[in-house]
Formats: sequence, structure tokens, C-alpha cells
Amino acid sequence: MDTALDLHGPLTEDELRRLDAYWRAANYLTVGQIYLLDNPLLREPLKPEHVKPRLLGHWGTSPGLNLLYTHLNRIIVNRDLSAIFVTGPGHGGPALVANTWLEGTYSELYHSVSRDETGMQRLFRQFSFPGGIPSHVAPEVPGSIHEGGELGYALSHAYGAAFDNPDLLVACVIGDGEAETGPLAGSWLSNVFLNPARDGAVLPILHLNGYKIANPTVLDRISTEDLLDLMRGYGHQPYIVEGDDPTKVHQTLAATLDRACDEIAEIQRRARSGGTVERPRWPMIILRTPKGWTGPARVDGKQVEGTYRAHQVPISEVRKNPEHLAELERWLRSYRPEELFDATGAPVGDLAALPPTGDRRMSANPVANGGRLLRDLDLPDFRDYAVDVKKPGEPAVGATGVLGTWVRDVISRNPQTFRLFGPDEVASNRLGAAFEVTDRAFVADTVEGDDHLSADGRVMEVLSEHLCEGWLEGYLLTGRHGIFTSYEAFIHIVDSMVNQHAKWLKVTRGIPWREPVASLNYLLSSHVWRQDHNGFSHQDPGFIDHVVNKKAEVVRVYLPPDANTLLSTMDHCLRSRHYINVVVAGKQPAPNWLSMDEAVQHCRRGLGIWDWASTDEGAEPDVVLACAGDVPTLETLAAAELLRQHLPELKVRVVNVVDLMRLQPPSEHPHGLPDNEFDTIFTRDKPIIFAYHGYPWLIHRLTYRRANHDNLHVRGYKEEGTTTTPFDMVMLNDLDRFHLVIDVIDRVPGLASRAAHLRQEMVDARQACRDHTRRYGEDDPRVAEWRWIRETDQALRGEQ
Amino acid sequence: MDTALDLHGPLTEDELRRLDAYWRAANYLTVGQIYLLDNPLLREPLKPEHVKPRLLGHWGTSPGLNLLYTHLNRIIVNRDLSAIFVTGPGHGGPALVANTWLEGTYSELYHSVSRDETGMQRLFRQFSFPGGIPSHVAPEVPGSIHEGGELGYALSHAYGAAFDNPDLLVACVIGDGEAETGPLAGSWLSNVFLNPARDGAVLPILHLNGYKIANPTVLDRISTEDLLDLMRGYGHQPYIVEGDDPTKVHQTLAATLDRACDEIAEIQRRARSGGTVERPRWPMIILRTPKGWTGPARVDGKQVEGTYRAHQVPISEVRKNPEHLAELERWLRSYRPEELFDATGAPVGDLAALPPTGDRRMSANPVANGGRLLRDLDLPDFRDYAVDVKKPGEPAVGATGVLGTWVRDVISRNPQTFRLFGPDEVASNRLGAAFEVTDRAFVADTVEGDDHLSADGRVMEVLSEHLCEGWLEGYLLTGRHGIFTSYEAFIHIVDSMVNQHAKWLKVTRGIPWREPVASLNYLLSSHVWRQDHNGFSHQDPGFIDHVVNKKAEVVRVYLPPDANTLLSTMDHCLRSRHYINVVVAGKQPAPNWLSMDEAVQHCRRGLGIWDWASTDEGAEPDVVLACAGDVPTLETLAAAELLRQHLPELKVRVVNVVDLMRLQPPSEHPHGLPDNEFDTIFTRDKPIIFAYHGYPWLIHRLTYRRANHDNLHVRGYKEEGTTTTPFDMVMLNDLDRFHLVIDVIDRVPGLASRAAHLRQEMVDARQACRDHTRRYGEDDPRVAEWRWIRETDQALRGEQ
Repeated sequence: MDTALDLHGPLTEDELRRLDAYWRAANYLTVGQIYLLDNPLLREPLKPEHVKPRLLGHWGTSPGLNLLYTHLNRIIVNRDLSAIFVTGPGHGGPALVANTWLEGTYSELYHSVSRDETGMQRLFRQFSFPGGIPSHVAPEVPGSIHEGGELGYALSHAYGAAFDNPDLLVACVIGDGEAETGPLAGSWLSNVFLNPARDGAVLPILHLNGYKIANPTVLDRISTEDLLDLMRGYGHQPYIVEGDDPTKVHQTLAATLDRACDEIAEIQRRARSGGTVERPRWPMIILRTPKGWTGPARVDGKQVEGTYRAHQVPISEVRKNPEHLAELERWLRSYRPEELFDATGAPVGDLAALPPTGDRRMSANPVANGGRLLRDLDLPDFRDYAVDVKKPGEPAVGATGVLGTWVRDVISRNPQTFRLFGPDEVASNRLGAAFEVTDRAFVADTVEGDDHLSADGRVMEVLSEHLCEGWLEGYLLTGRHGIFTSYEAFIHIVDSMVNQHAKWLKVTRGIPWREPVASLNYLLSSHVWRQDHNGFSHQDPGFIDHVVNKKAEVVRVYLPPDANTLLSTMDHCLRSRHYINVVVAGKQPAPNWLSMDEAVQHCRRGLGIWDWASTDEGAEPDVVLACAGDVPTLETLAAAELLRQHLPELKVRVVNVVDLMRLQPPSEHPHGLPDNEFDTIFTRDKPIIFAYHGYPWLIHRLTYRRANHDNLHVRGYKEEGTTTTPFDMVMLNDLDRFHLVIDVIDRVPGLASRAAHLRQEMVDARQACRDHTRRYGEDDPRVAEWRWIRETDQALRGEQ
Repeated sequence: MDTALDLHGPLTEDELRRLDAYWRAANYLTVGQIYLLDNPLLREPLKPEHVKPRLLGHWGTSPGLNLLYTHLNRIIVNRDLSAIFVTGPGHGGPALVANTWLEGTYSELYHSVSRDETGMQRLFRQFSFPGGIPSHVAPEVPGSIHEGGELGYALSHAYGAAFDNPDLLVACVIGDGEAETGPLAGSWLSNVFLNPARDGAVLPILHLNGYKIANPTVLDRISTEDLLDLMRGYGHQPYIVEGDDPTKVHQTLAATLDRACDEIAEIQRRARSGGTVERPRWPMIILRTPKGWTGPARVDGKQVEGTYRAHQVPISEVRKNPEHLAELERWLRSYRPEELFDATGAPVGDLAALPPTGDRRMSANPVANGGRLLRDLDLPDFRDYAVDVKKPGEPAVGATGVLGTWVRDVISRNPQTFRLFGPDEVASNRLGAAFEVTDRAFVADTVEGDDHLSADGRVMEVLSEHLCEGWLEGYLLTGRHGIFTSYEAFIHIVDSMVNQHAKWLKVTRGIPWREPVASLNYLLSSHVWRQDHNGFSHQDPGFIDHVVNKKAEVVRVYLPPDANTLLSTMDHCLRSRHYINVVVAGKQPAPNWLSMDEAVQHCRRGLGIWDWASTDEGAEPDVVLACAGDVPTLETLAAAELLRQHLPELKVRVVNVVDLMRLQPPSEHPHGLPDNEFDTIFTRDKPIIFAYHGYPWLIHRLTYRRANHDNLHVRGYKEEGTTTTPFDMVMLNDLDRFHLVIDVIDRVPGLASRAAHLRQEMVDARQACRDHTRRYGEDDPRVAEWRWIRETDQALRGEQ
């Protein structure tokens, strides 16, 4: 197969001239943003005071981005395509801003930056300056769903955008620097999950400009044959567009884009004309052009164009160095601005007529402002999936398994706007009911015995948290809905991606034309307390801590203690907008506490006193037992029961927390409970023993401003664990029922002496339990353990 | 080139028989660990009570691991190789444990698990049970430097081990599940950084067993041609070993390993015989064998061998289901244990003679217990690199630039045991002095104008935090030293890797035969307060929060406020053992405060009162201004100066914190300051205004147990930022000098009315400063801003 098309066509002389002029205009506007304060059209000779005092921006990648944007405009117009542009090298912000201004979108959204000389001057001044706009392809840039500040996610975002968008072309530029990152390297095979019949197309464009900040790039320095093999290995048909002669590159790029679009159209036609979907060989383009192309070749005797020195600002100290000033002026004038802009400063007619119009402009495509397209999900009534709780604790059913039946029906009722994402753990996390109505998406060879694989599957499973996250972000930002389910410990793999998404959400709240998108919902199961079989490497509840560092307006954390509260919580999350919702829930059979009505009410409040488990009977208690998370709730209720039996006169109040952010003051988080309500529930001066799912200090960090904080004593995970039984896990971390009773005895004034005997019983029970766990019994040690613990509980209570 | 060798040789009949027997023995011991409680040698018919009540473990990957381990033993013996085994599919713990027991290492390190029947029974019983050993290739497993619980890092660990170990062969098994992760996908091109003359060899072995937990793997389902292209694209010469007939697979694997070793030897010979080093085409092996090979083909009528059902425990409910019991017995007996173990239960002579002996055993290779090989670095005296601080604040020099000169000499003096790692940011983080003595490692094409690239370089730069982290971990765990320098925000990319390394360090502290290794040192620069040009996406100080969730014994966090304290801190870090040290320091020109003697003393204390900046003169102050981090220190000192001028009677104490862990009580962290000392410094009842580098709540979380916590008021980064000036960044987050003065006025009792005028001046100054920043001046706005702030300070102080 050909990998390089080197033709005389397809552009006519006139088309070529116009394309090149448009490219020059975009380049001119890019350089203007980096350098100019005034004299935007160079109507007078450039003077030092026309130049910005601080020079900021990334030139190196920009001419390539401008070239691609220009040529994509051509094929959009020629073929009436719906396309968006994902800018992997997001540092090239001024290039994208230039293009959106050229095609008018920028001025429509930011009126003061009009498409005339005044507007151009504002466009230049505002770039990378206080009160202006950021230097990257930030959310402020129309048409962007991807900032590209932290590198690695361009391609996964592109695929996420393409899913369920059959008419969309996502042009995804990948810098050769970004291509070195793990997440990007792992994204290429996303094409195994893209269904040409139902999904849109992604056109990856690897932009080999050879250098990063200070180093050559790896992919530029391996042999071309290896590079082509690599792309073929990823399942692509690669085409190389290479050169530094604009005329030739224009022709080759135009021909190559035509060919790529033809191939994509043919792939889609075949897939959509019926029959089985086979994995197609999608085209991709390798664009090899000089870094900082069209910029100054040499500065101060050193090569700049085509080297890492072109990465940011090629000519520095322009105000003070007359030679540099002259060099900058030569550079700017090399684009011949007088041919590009009319007397008013607007693009000349030829140029203005070149890009697509209206929503066909990549900067105005509603797909890239997903909130505009977002529709509410058709959600089945979660109450219909309730566990019938006869009395607190019964039946014992795994929460995520129950949720799975509801998720199944969410999938059924929303066949084009909802997907479930997970790293090979959907069934392991007990959401397998989904497979009653759909499959796992998979567009590669299948064999007999494969379990629910098809090109049409709506469950996205790949052993990569990065891909799940990137796909889902791309899917959400283009107006759809989803859930990411993962083992709790390994969601840390995407910590930094979550950071970036949280920042995106925070910033877009302040951009009026950006409509809210669906929330990013995490369902974390196989959590720290029930990774007893995998051991220490799988035990980490710190993702919550990570998320709550982000802006309070965008983060929510829920710890439903059982199935009905989980149903209510997830229903709420799927209705919410523009948040990051973290939900942690268990998958193992576990007691259920609340009827559906109680669950709904409890979730609405976010936290509350469980009267049925308390012995304070509405009066001021002697001690508050608080809990958050399914396992801590179980241990707390067991401790309350032990206390009820042994210290019946002790007034114990049990408080359960579903919505963790209720613990913060309202000044810190919108969900924060007012101080008076907090004090009413937690008292102002009684000991609080708080059994928490994660690292205990988080509870202190959330509550340190509360009146009763000094009396708060938190138990949680303190980084102790191994392959052992579930109860041994809580004991290793002092979160077990016996230890909670000890904590009560040690903290309630006057109880130490009165309950010395009980305290010793608890100490003995812990030791006996550890001994028991370490003995092999007749049964599964988990079963034996629970039976033994129950017997211990009963014996301690004086029951049979 | 051939990719599959299908020969009759090279094994003689007898060799084949012995290899196969050894493999059967390892498989038998693997199954035994998963299933057996008793009757380890099957001397009597299998009964329910011989079987464990709870069945745990991962069978699917184990036969492949055993096969590879067995065959690697053969080439180690034949060629007298030094080799280690990196188990990407770390879930296959029982396979590795089986092999280490077979070759005797296990019993040498764990005496009670002797190489006889009693020991074998203990070996079986202990696996995956409370008080026993974890189910993965955890640190407890001899010869392991890689747990493989969280997937993605096998290959980067392997390369890290190979660097500077010219005689080492690292056999790295990569599961086809792991191969889907981003970090692993990004690791293949590590070969671009491996110098065949100076470094050892990595032999990647992609184990295609076709399935993950519930899904087929992607690499198993793309075409073989694509897969081979992919491996060639990564620069490898791939060899396929494929089949399910043990005899054939043994022959092919033996031939292929011979060929791979020959090629490696030839590559190394060429490179080491002088001349330029060219990028070699290293061999790699694709092993395609059935998942759960030699296990039960079908169970309950469903195919198990060769499918995802073989992933964990292929036959369940063995105690209760007589058919399953019989199936298990057939399975175990299919290995013919009576041929494998003698009357005492030890491996028969033939088997015992097969593996290498002594330190040639992969389980005993000292490289995999790096502390055994670790030698102190030859460190130049950091005092010789001191900044000459004439008076506090002068000169203004960037801290990391000064450190760079010392790091340069650390590199010079330790040419084989120290490397510097960074994602294309070493020069950007101002450690460029390193390039006076070395280059960036790069074993691919170079061109004129490249900056300090060579095969011999000791600076490891690649645009992948994952690779930097994985390489460095591998390098440290095999007994060497290093520093990882990164932009502060993007170190979150490796959050989960840090988790796993911290867990490794925590566990190995309790394993007597594991010697301490060098600490994992992070130097984070380009930090949140000086990412003014890149903007919001580059602003995140939360890595500290992430790290302090790990076990206190292994984490240390330092915030040196200037160059001399940074020098002293890094010297300490490079001498330390078995920690994770996080050091955050600035790269921009900034004031220096302490002479070297003062710096050393200050760092030794970890925190202290800066008398020269305080006005309490040894008496009880009215307010404590505390600070941690370079920018907060500057703002705090400026605020102290404003207070000195305007409220000279106010007794202000300035406290600087270098070692963040000093803030915790000694009960929580070994560095914790005793309460009485804390109270002496921070007072028991005076307001503390704490200016902190990161998220402010971390300071609360560290100090909530301190007596004076209720009076602690923390300013820090609250997730506000954009592309703006440095001073605007601190203002956006209320960390600026003016706001700190306002905080003092608002918090010191009685000051509000007395200093109302000053308070208003501060409010006005803030507003004026914001206005000023947003105007374009003559100068670089940073310069203008600083000049203007200085003028404002002076004016406020009544100076000229």
C-alpha cells in the first residue's frame, strides 16, 4: 500500500493560492498574539512599543496546527462534513484562537474581539496576559473539548467524541511529544472498540515536528519503516505527508486528506450497508514538517526553525534588541498581511469565503459544546429495583448487583446516549446484569465461547483506566452520559486526568456559552475492605482525598451503606450536571438497612440519625457513633448492639453519613450542613466515634471547624492490609466492632472504670478472633469467621 | 526475518524429559498452593478435608510463567548468565513461589517451609491465607522486584534494572492484559534509551494467553501480521512460540531462547568492541499458549482451559462437590507427583539438579534484593555550592539552578550508580548544569544541532512520567540511586505508581532478608505558584497530600525556602534509605534567606523561628506568621516587614517550616515535633497565620491534635489560577502579603479597631495591584509588577 501520495493535484492553482493565503493569515494571527501589543496590521513600521513586554506562547507546533485546520476546512466544505478538531499539542493555543477568529466564531462569542482591526488588536493583547485568555487550547477556545496542557489524552478524547456520533469526523492531532506518553501510546488501539456502523470516525494525525522542549522526539528518530510498521501494527493504514515546501505539502496534504476521507466513507458505507462488521483498516496521517515552520530560520546565528529552539518564543528580547525587532518585522511581513486583511482589518473576501459556515465550522460544531446537545436520560424508576428490607440487616444482598439491574434498564432505555465504562471489571464489580441487554463493544476477531462481545456492545471494557476515563470524558463533553466503574484502588491511575477534568468543569462554569454537561460518575467497588483476596496492592481508599482537593462546586462524594441507598444515589448522580460524583459501594453480599422510602429520605438529607439503632431516644446522647461506608456501618451497628446489651443505660446515637460533603461547613462546600444542624446531630460536647471507609484524617480535614471537633475520634484505613479475611482487615485497622466499643469506653467520661470488665472482654474477643482467623477451620474461613463473630457477639450479649 | 522457529532440536530427549518434569513439578506446586490443605504429595486418595475451605489464587497465567521460568533456568545454566525474572502477571504468585521453593531459595529464607513434605504442606497452607503469604508476587517472594498487582509497569521496571548492569539479563513477562494499559504500551520504546555497551539486556516476553478476567485481550485478537508489525515498529525482532503440545512448545521455546540469547550476545559484543553505538534490533518473544494450560479442559460442561474461566480457580466448590473433587485429583495426578518428589517430599535428583545454583538462581540474584548491592554515593560537600547570602533576601538566585551544579558533580563522581530522570524537563527545571558533564541517554538517530544526546548519557529524559518513575523504581530496587525531577502538577500522573512503591517499601521493612534500598527522591519544580505562563492546567500542589496518606514510616516532605536549604535537603535525601522524599523547590530567581550554616541548622531542626524577621524578641508574640514553601515564605516576610513598619509594637514571630512532617505529633510521624516544643514555637493560644505552598487543609490535617489548632488560620492554593503574573497568582488565592496583614489584623484580639486604617490600606493595595497587573506597562508585567509591589511596600512603610 502507498504510504505517501505525491501528486500534482488535486488543488487548482487558485485553490492552492487561497489555501496558502488562509494558512498565512492563521500564522500571522498566531505570531501577532505572541508578540504584538499594537500596530496589529503593520500599517506602520514595527517599533519596540508595539511589542508585548512579556513574550509568552508556543510557536513551534502552531504552523502545523494552522495547516491542518486550514485543510480540514477544505474537506468539510467539499464534503459537507460535520467535524471537530482535537488539539493534542494544546500548547498551540494561539493557532486555534487564530482560526476561530478567522472563521468568525470567536467574535460571535466574544463580541469585543470583533473581526476588524480593533478586534484584532484585542485578540493580540489578550493572549497570555492577566485578565486575558490562557495560552493553551483552554475551555475558553470555541470548538475545543481538550486542553492539551497535560499530555496524553487527545486520542482517547477523540474516540469518546466519536462513539454514537455516526456522522462525525474527529480530526485528532497528536504531537510527537505526546506520543511518548503511556496513555497516548495505549490509545491507538481504541480503534478495536469503534463500530464503523454506529460510531463516527477518528482520523489520527501524528504531527512529527521532531522536537519537544529540549529533546528530539522518539518517533521522529526511529526509522520511517519502523514508524510505518508501528502504525500498521495499530491497525491503521498510514500516509506520510512530508516536506518543507509549502506548495508541495499543500498538494500532498490535500490529496491525502481526500484519500483518507474516501477510505473512511467507504469503510462506513460497507459497515452500514448491512452484514457483519469487520475491523476496518482506518487511515491515519503522519505529517512531518519542520517545527516552527515559516518562522525565523536562524536567530543570533543559531538554527531555530526545525529545532527545539522554535518550541516557545523564537525571537526574544525584541523590545531591547533592534536586530530582533527587525527580524520579527521581517517574519510578520513574510505573511504579507496586506493581502490577507482588508482596510477594516477583516479577512479579505477570498479568505472569509474559505471556511465552512454556521455550525459546520469546527469552532461552532455543537458537538464540541456538548451541553447544547445534552438531553436528560430516560431513567427507570429506581424504586422499582428496591431490596425489600424486612428489618434492618435483612436480606444480605450485594449492593452493586442490585444496582446492576437498574443500570441494565438505563442502557436499554437510552440506546444511543449512555455507556458503561470499566477496565475489565464490569462483571467483577457485579454489574453483569447489563449483559442481559447488551454486549461488550469489540470490533476484532471473536471466537466461540467469548462472553458477550459484539461491535454493537454498549459496555466499554479495556484493561486501561486511562482509556476508560479518556473515552468517557470525550463522550460526556460531547453531550452524552456514562458511568465509570473501577476497582477503588486503581482509580488512582487516572488521578491526573480527573484533575484536568475538574479544572475544565470549574472554568466552564464561568463561560456563559458553555452549556453544562453530564456529570462524570465513578462507581468504585471491590473496595479497600473487600480486597482481602488480592491483598495490599489492591487496598487504597485515597481517591476520595484526591477528589476533594478540587473546587467544591464540582466535586461530590457518596458512601451509600446498602443497596437502596446506592440506587437512590446513582439516580441522583445520573440526573446531575457538571459534577464529578464519586460513589463507593460494596459488591459482596452484605446487610441492607433501609427500606426504599427510608433510603430516599436518608439520601436526600445526606446524613442522619438512625433512631432504630440508637438508644438515646431523642435525648442528648452520651456518645455518638458515626459511620460512612458499608463496612464501617456494619461494624458501627454491631458495636451499637454490643453496647445496647452490655451498657443498656448508655445513651448511644448512631449517625450514618451518605454524602460526605455534608460534613464540611456551608462556607466550604455547597452541601455543607449548617453548624446548628451539625451540632444538633453530633452534639457540641459529647464524644464522637467515627468509623470511616477511607483514611481517617480526611474526616478531620472536613470537620475541623465544627464546634465538637475536639471530641471527634476517627477510625479508618491506616494502610494496613494483606491477603486475609474481611474481618481481619477491619481488625488490622482498628475499625472492628470490638475496637469501636473500646473507643466508646475510653472516651465517654466515667465509663472506663464502670465498664472495665467489658473492655477486657473486647480485648479478649479481638485476640480470640485473630487466633481464630489464623486457624484453618472446616469452612471457608470467611464463613467460619462470620459465624464465629456472630457467636461471639451473641455470647457477649448473653444470647444463645 | 523468521518470526517462528519450529525445530526438532535443540533439546535432547533427556533434556526435554527433564525440562518437562520440572515444569510439571512447578505446575503441581502451583495447583497445590491454590487447593491443598493436606495430603500434599497425594499419598492417599484426595478427600474433601484435604482441600482448602476457601479457594484463592490465579491459575490462568501460572503454567506459562512456570514454563518460562523453567526454560530460563536452562539458558542460565548453559550460558552462566546473571538473570532476573520480572513477572508482569504478578497475580501468578503461586507459580513464582513454586519455582523459588523448587530451587531452594524459599526454604533458605523461610526455614519452616523446608524442601520436604512438611515444608510442602506449609507451602500449600500458607498461600493466600491469614497469617500466610499474599496471593501475588509480593515483596515476600524471593527474586521479585515487581509485584504486578496494579498492571502496567513490568517493562519499565525491567529496563530500570538493566541500566548500568551490563552483565544482567532481565527476562520480563508481559501479560496480554497488562499490554493494554497505557503505561505498558508506552514502555516498549524504552529500548531507545538502553545502551548495549553499558547496560544489560531486557528480553520482553509477551505472554498471549488470550483472556483477561472476563474478556479476550486485544493483542490476541488483532491479526498476527499486525502484532508482528507492532513489535517491529517498537524496534524489536519478534519471535513467536505458539502451541498447546508441550513437546513442541518446549523445543520451540528452547530454540527461540537460544536464538534470542545469541542475538543479545552479538548485539552486546558489537557494541562493546568499540565504535559508535547504533540502535540494535533487540529480540523479543511472543508466547501464545492456552490460558490455564494443563488445567482441566472442561468443568461442568463448560470449556475452561484456553478461556477466561481459567483466570482464577478453575474448579470451585471442591469440598462439597464429589465430581469436582475427583476432577481436581485427576488434574493433580496428571503431573505424576510420584515421579517428581522423593520419599521425603523433596524434588527428585534430576529436578534438583536442573536449576542454577547459588546467586545464579533468579530468586537469589542479589540484583533483585538491591539493598545487598547498595553502596553510599560519593557526594560532594554541598556546602561548597552555597549561595553567599550577605543579608536575608540577597542575592536573588533560582534554587534549582544552584542545586544543578551540585547534581552535576554527583553525576560525575558516581558514574555507574546514579541517574537523573525527568520528562523532558531537566533543563526547564534548571538542572541544566548536568549537561556540563553528561548527556541525555538516547540510542537512536541523532542529527547536527541536537543538544547533549548520546548513548552514554546519564540523564534519562522521555516525555513520560510513567517511564521515568518505572525506570527509577527498577533502578533503585536493584541497588542504585536517583532523582526524579518533574513539573509539580504532572507528578500526579504517577500517583498510583507511588502508591505501589510506598506499599513495597512498607512491607519490605518487615522482611528481614530484604535490605533497605535508596530512597525515591522527587524534586518538584515549575510549581503551582510559578506556572503563571502555562496556566490553570499546570497548577496543582496536591501530590504532597497524596503522599502523606501513605505509611508515615516511608514518607517525607520538604519545602526548602531557598537555595541553601535545598542543597542541604537534597544531600540528606540522597543519603537516606527506604523513604519516599518529596522536595518542592522553585526554579525562578528568588530571594535567598539563610547562609549555609543557618540553612544546615534550620534543615536539621526541620522548622524554626527566624529571629531576624521576627519582632517578638524572645518574648511571647502576639501573632505567629508561619510559612512553608518558597513563595509563601516571601509573602510572609513581606507581610512581617509591613507589620514591623506600621504596627511596630505588635510582637510578630516568623516561623519557617522545611520538613512538613514536623507539624504532626510524634505519635503520627517519626519526624513529629513533641507537643511541648510545638507549643513553645507556635504558642498555646496566639493566632497563627500559616502561609502554605499547597492546599491549605493539609496543614489542618497535620496539626488538628495540637493545643493551638483552633487559632490556626491557613492560606494556600485553593484551586484558583490562570495565565497571569506571579503576584496575581498569590492574590487570586489570598496568599499575598497584603492579605496576610489583613489576616493578622482580623485575628489578633483588639487589633481590628486599632489598625482599621492599615486594613483599609491593604484592601486598597490589593485592588490597586490587581488593576495594575491588568494594565499593560512599559515593561514585562512581571518586572513592572514586582517594581510596583516594591514601591507599594515602600510607600506603605513610609519609605521613598
